[in-house]
Amino acid sequence: MTATLPSWNDGTVKSAILDFVAAVTKEGGPDFVPPAARIATFDNDGTLWCEQPMQVQGFFLADRVKALAAADPTIATRQPYKAFLEHDHATMHELGRKGLEELVAATHAGMTEEEFDRIASSWLATAKHPTFGHLFKRCVYRPQVELLQYLRAHGFATWIVSGGGIDFMRAVTEEIYGIPRHQVVGSSAKTRFDIVDGRATLTKLGDLACFDDREAKVKNIALHVGRRPILAFGNSDGDLAMLRYTKSGPERRLALLVHHDDAEREVAYDREFRLSPLVDGLDNADAYGITLVSMKRDWKAVFA
Amino acid sequence: MTATLPSWNDGTVKSAILDFVAAVTKEGGPDFVPPAARIATFDNDGTLWCEQPMQVQGFFLADRVKALAAADPTIATRQPYKAFLEHDHATMHELGRKGLEELVAATHAGMTEEEFDRIASSWLATAKHPTFGHLFKRCVYRPQVELLQYLRAHGFATWIVSGGGIDFMRAVTEEIYGIPRHQVVGSSAKTRFDIVDGRATLTKLGDLACFDDREAKVKNIALHVGRRPILAFGNSDGDLAMLRYTKSGPERRLALLVHHDDAEREVAYDREFRLSPLVDGLDNADAYGITLVSMKRDWKAVFA
Repeated sequence: MTATLPSWNDGTVKSAILDFVAAVTKEGGPDFVPPAARIATFDNDGTLWCEQPMQVQGFFLADRVKALAAADPTIATRQPYKAFLEHDHATMHELGRKGLEELVAATHAGMTEEEFDRIASSWLATAKHPTFGHLFKRCVYRPQVELLQYLRAHGFATWIVSGGGIDFMRAVTEEIYGIPRHQVVGSSAKTRFDIVDGRATLTKLGDLACFDDREAKVKNIALHVGRRPILAFGNSDGDLAMLRYTKSGPERRLALLVHHDDAEREVAYDREFRLSPLVDGLDNADAYGITLVSMKRDWKAVFA
Repeated sequence: MTATLPSWNDGTVKSAILDFVAAVTKEGGPDFVPPAARIATFDNDGTLWCEQPMQVQGFFLADRVKALAAADPTIATRQPYKAFLEHDHATMHELGRKGLEELVAATHAGMTEEEFDRIASSWLATAKHPTFGHLFKRCVYRPQVELLQYLRAHGFATWIVSGGGIDFMRAVTEEIYGIPRHQVVGSSAKTRFDIVDGRATLTKLGDLACFDDREAKVKNIALHVGRRPILAFGNSDGDLAMLRYTKSGPERRLALLVHHDDAEREVAYDREFRLSPLVDGLDNADAYGITLVSMKRDWKAVFA
C-alpha cells in the first residue's frame, strides 16, 4: 500500500487534513458531504508553486518586455518597463497596480486567446527559475500535488482561484497539477469579438476585467464554481476572504494557509513580502479557524 | 441495443450529428479531437427547454413580483411590475432591458446566493407551464436531453451558455440535464462580500454584472471554459456569435439552430418573437455553415 500524502510529515496538520477528508466522505456520518459539493479551492502563487523572488508570471512579463525592448530600445528607459527589466522590486511595488496593468497590456494583449496560449506554453516549456535552476513548471510543491491527487481520489473537484492571469495559468495547470482549464479562475482581461472574412475571433485587450484577489476571489468562486468550497488553501492575506468564506459554510470545513518559514529549502517570508504579504492571517489564524501549515515542520519534501 | 438518439428522426440532421461525433472521436482519424477539447455549448431557453410564451425565468419573476405586490399593493400600479403581472408582453418589450433589470433587481437581489438557490429550487419544484400544464422543469426537449447524454457518453463536456440567470439555471440543470452547476454560464448580477459576526456571506445585488447574450456568450465561454467549443447549439440570433465562433475553429465543428416550426407539438415562431428572434440565422444559416434543425421534421418527440 502506498503511504497517504508521503511528502507530509505526521503531525496535527496532516491529521487535520486526513480527519477532515475521512469525515466528509463517510457516508451516513454527521459530516458527510456528497461528491458534487466537495469543492476545494487553491491559490496558486506561493500555495501550489514558488512565488519568490516574484511570481512566475512576473518573469514571463519580464521576458516579454525584453522582447519588446529588443525591438524598440527606448522602452527600456521608461517605467514601468525599466523596473521590470532590472528586477527592481521596490520600484515595481511603488508603481503598484497601475504599473502592473500597463505591463500586462503591453505583453498580454493584442493577440487571440489561442495565440496567447501558444506564447505562454512555449515560454513555460523552457523558462527556468533564476536561483533554483529548474524549469518554473517544476517549481511546484510536491506535498500540494499529492494533496490535490488525494482530494480528487476522494471525490473532490480541485480548483485554482488565484490572482494570476487566468490564461497564463491555463497554459500549464493540466500538466503540472492535473487541473483542467475550466477549473482555473484568475485575473482576466477584457476581450474583443470580431468577425473578419467570415471567421470569428476573440482578442485579448489591455484593460483588466477582474483582478482576482481578496473579495474578488469569493465573487469569482460564486460565478465559476457556483458552490461554497468546503476546503480552501492559500498563503497570503489575499486569500483570507476565500478562506473565511469557506469556513463560514454550515458543514464541516477546512481552511489552510502555507507559512513560508523554510529558508533552507525555499524562502522564509511572510509579513514583509511586498507583492503578497501574510499579516492578518498570521495574527488571526486561530480566531478565523484557519490551520497554519509550516513548510519547515509539515512538509517532508518541498519541490516535486 | 438501445437505438441512438431515439427521439430524433432519421435524416440529414441526425446524420450530421452522428457523423460529426464519429469523426471527432475516431482515434487516428483526420478529425480526431482529444476528450479534453470536446466542448459542447448549448443555449437554454428555446434550445433545451420551452421559452414560450415567455422564458421560464419570466414566470418566476412574475410569481416573485406577485409576492411583492401582495405585501405592497402599490407595486401593481407601477411599471415594469404592472406589465409583468398582466403578462403584457408588448409593454415588457417596450420597457426593454432596463425594465427587465429593474425586475431582476427587485426579485433576485438582497439575499445570499444560497438563499436565492432555495427560493428558485422551491419555485421550480411546483411551478407549472400555463398552457402545457406540466411542471416547467418537465418542459425540456427530449431529443436534446438524449443528445446531451449521447455527447457525454462520447467524452464531451456539455455546457449551458444562456442569457438566463446563472443562479436561476443552476438550481435545476443538474436534475433536468445532468449538467453540473459549474458548467452553467449565464447572466449574472454583481455581489457584495460581507463579514458579519465573523461569518462571511455573499449577497446578490440589483446591478447586472453581465448580460450573457450575443458576443458576451463568446467572451464568457473564453472566461469559464477556456476553450473554443467544437459543437454549439442555439435557437436565436442571440446565439449566432457563439455558433460562428465555434465554426471558426481550425478543426471540424458543428453548429446547430433549433427552428421552432412545430405549431402542433410546441409553438411555431422565429422572426417575430420579440424576446429572442431568429432572423439572421434563418437567412444566413448556409453562409455561416450552420445546420438548421426543424422541430417538426427532425424531432420524433418534443417533450420528455
